[in-house]
Amino acid sequence: MPMTGKTKRASWTNWFADHPYHPAQTVLETDALVIGAGPIGLWTVFELGLQGLTCEVVDTLDEAGGQCVALYADKPIYDIPGLPVVSGSDLTQSLLQQIKPFHAGFHFGHQVSALSRLEDGRWHVQAHGVHTGKAQSFAARSIFIAAGVGAFVPKSPKLDGVEALQGQHVFFQYPDSAPLTAGKVCVLGGEQAAVSCVLQLIREHPALTVTLIHRRNVLKAQEADLSRLSALQSSGRVEFVIGQVSALLTSDAAPHALRAVQVDTSEGNLIHIDAHTLVIQQGLSPKLGPLADWGLAMARKQLSVDLETFSTSQSGIYAMGDIVQYPGKRKLIVSGFHEATQAAFAAAAVLRPEQSQVLQYTTSSALLQKRLGLT
Amino acid sequence: MPMTGKTKRASWTNWFADHPYHPAQTVLETDALVIGAGPIGLWTVFELGLQGLTCEVVDTLDEAGGQCVALYADKPIYDIPGLPVVSGSDLTQSLLQQIKPFHAGFHFGHQVSALSRLEDGRWHVQAHGVHTGKAQSFAARSIFIAAGVGAFVPKSPKLDGVEALQGQHVFFQYPDSAPLTAGKVCVLGGEQAAVSCVLQLIREHPALTVTLIHRRNVLKAQEADLSRLSALQSSGRVEFVIGQVSALLTSDAAPHALRAVQVDTSEGNLIHIDAHTLVIQQGLSPKLGPLADWGLAMARKQLSVDLETFSTSQSGIYAMGDIVQYPGKRKLIVSGFHEATQAAFAAAAVLRPEQSQVLQYTTSSALLQKRLGLT
Repeated sequence: MPMTGKTKRASWTNWFADHPYHPAQTVLETDALVIGAGPIGLWTVFELGLQGLTCEVVDTLDEAGGQCVALYADKPIYDIPGLPVVSGSDLTQSLLQQIKPFHAGFHFGHQVSALSRLEDGRWHVQAHGVHTGKAQSFAARSIFIAAGVGAFVPKSPKLDGVEALQGQHVFFQYPDSAPLTAGKVCVLGGEQAAVSCVLQLIREHPALTVTLIHRRNVLKAQEADLSRLSALQSSGRVEFVIGQVSALLTSDAAPHALRAVQVDTSEGNLIHIDAHTLVIQQGLSPKLGPLADWGLAMARKQLSVDLETFSTSQSGIYAMGDIVQYPGKRKLIVSGFHEATQAAFAAAAVLRPEQSQVLQYTTSSALLQKRLGLT
Repeated sequence: MPMTGKTKRASWTNWFADHPYHPAQTVLETDALVIGAGPIGLWTVFELGLQGLTCEVVDTLDEAGGQCVALYADKPIYDIPGLPVVSGSDLTQSLLQQIKPFHAGFHFGHQVSALSRLEDGRWHVQAHGVHTGKAQSFAARSIFIAAGVGAFVPKSPKLDGVEALQGQHVFFQYPDSAPLTAGKVCVLGGEQAAVSCVLQLIREHPALTVTLIHRRNVLKAQEADLSRLSALQSSGRVEFVIGQVSALLTSDAAPHALRAVQVDTSEGNLIHIDAHTLVIQQGLSPKLGPLADWGLAMARKQLSVDLETFSTSQSGIYAMGDIVQYPGKRKLIVSGFHEATQAAFAAAAVLRPEQSQVLQYTTSSALLQKRLGLT
């Protein structure tokens, strides 16, 4: 019985383009589609809201905050003006509170993919659920790319055939939806997330055995969890393999079912570990992803923008925050706030030309206070 | 005895240039002289501090906060990122707390006047105490103009000879330093500050009579204070004159002593009111003042700046906040914070060329945390 071998490499971020599952979907219409729910994306929502523009927000993560939450949620930040010290998660919470009046639609766990121009001049953007594969599309009068260092997507070895198996046999999060009553599961990773996943699988499924696969002989996790893992190894319910997963094996009879995982061990051997489920828990890594293929002018892997409007090279598409590049650009939150503000004003001048362009202040403007839900 | 009449007009802001009182002074040496202690000036201090640069700050007002405090201290501001609602004075307090680690020198109640280039390339800036006339000069390696809508200076009718009388006979604040045991004082103004001044003078000096002069028959002040004023009018200790002060009268024998105030009354008469002291309490008004004469390129009465460095047309002089003009400029605090940040980085590249230009973060940089006094 031939096994699927290493034939070509497909990156995880290309998965959506090829994925066969496209259920019937509603196209969400909006003035502005904001890509990224980090501090700068949230501030973009605020400034768009003040301009009277509606927003839908897409982020690959499952919550708001971007890097601030994914990479350093509890670390103090000292250079947000007016907040002598604030954690990334507290800053995010404050911004979420600040944008509440504008009722933006949030699409967490979604990544944007294809972009096209509609006949009426609006942009059509396709997005997919990172975990569900479910499609969601938008018809937007303007797009605001506040994607920071890129979309946070699960790190994964490049494995052929992963697309066809994902959601049924291959998972990038705890496999809630998989039938796991018995048999063997492989977990890939060497840090807390992987160790926690193994322990939870064992706890919830008494008939299951689990193989933890990591490239090195060192696991980084809480001491107590490592002790538990050790005990489970002694009792035979958990196996630990040092090596790299190099292929997913299926059979001719059931080409869409995982049969085994191929591992290049640290000793240089190629082994097959029987498993009907693989859980990849190697953390998150930011990738520019499909945005890189949108045909927007770039410099040094970042989006080039106009310094007055923060427009990209495509009309109606703006960018702000760490993803942009201009002379003197510094990747600071304080700068992203300004960039988002400029872009929102520029978009409003195009999308609401009938609206006065005289600057109004939240302190004194009845219109802005009405939009803020204060009157 | 001839009286001083209306001969030529001298504006209040030119007073310093002519004022004869120049006591011995120390020249304060600093990396950066920041003009303006509003939110943007304070943020400039923060970003300069992170860059390891020392600061002296000059502001005409007697406290920090600029417009935010002088014009709308208690009004809520809704568009500071991360602060869903904050008053101008609370924002100022937060910023003051945030810059504490940097020990900037503050010179409140001071207005800058003359600017010149020293032989070593530094800038020499002259400043004077708004109320004291006392001179203070600075030798600064760089200047940051965060002067907002200008220096808040007392509103005043244009009166010939006011320079020679100020501080002895003419005051723009409550005349603490004047000998007021007896005689007659004129107070000019029609709002709370003027009314409060009259009441305080009467309360503190039982032998004094006071004339309140206002151009209209309407006073704006607290009801209780207006009742008190009315009672004092009935008892003869306070007189109310409707008209405009058009000249200050002295005598040949004592040309530096006020003898009377000339008023163009609302009925069209020219009257003289005997007085040895005039207190002008007509509120504050922002004026660009001497900055307008510094030879910096301007557009629409505002400073032109480079969008990368926020440098003015003179090297080493930067500008940020409401005083600057560039394509797309909006007078928002959120933008000023960014402008100040860019300028501080640009100055550091010039003043600390030996320092790494690689962007560091307060969250992770030991150097920045040391400068913040955290380690």
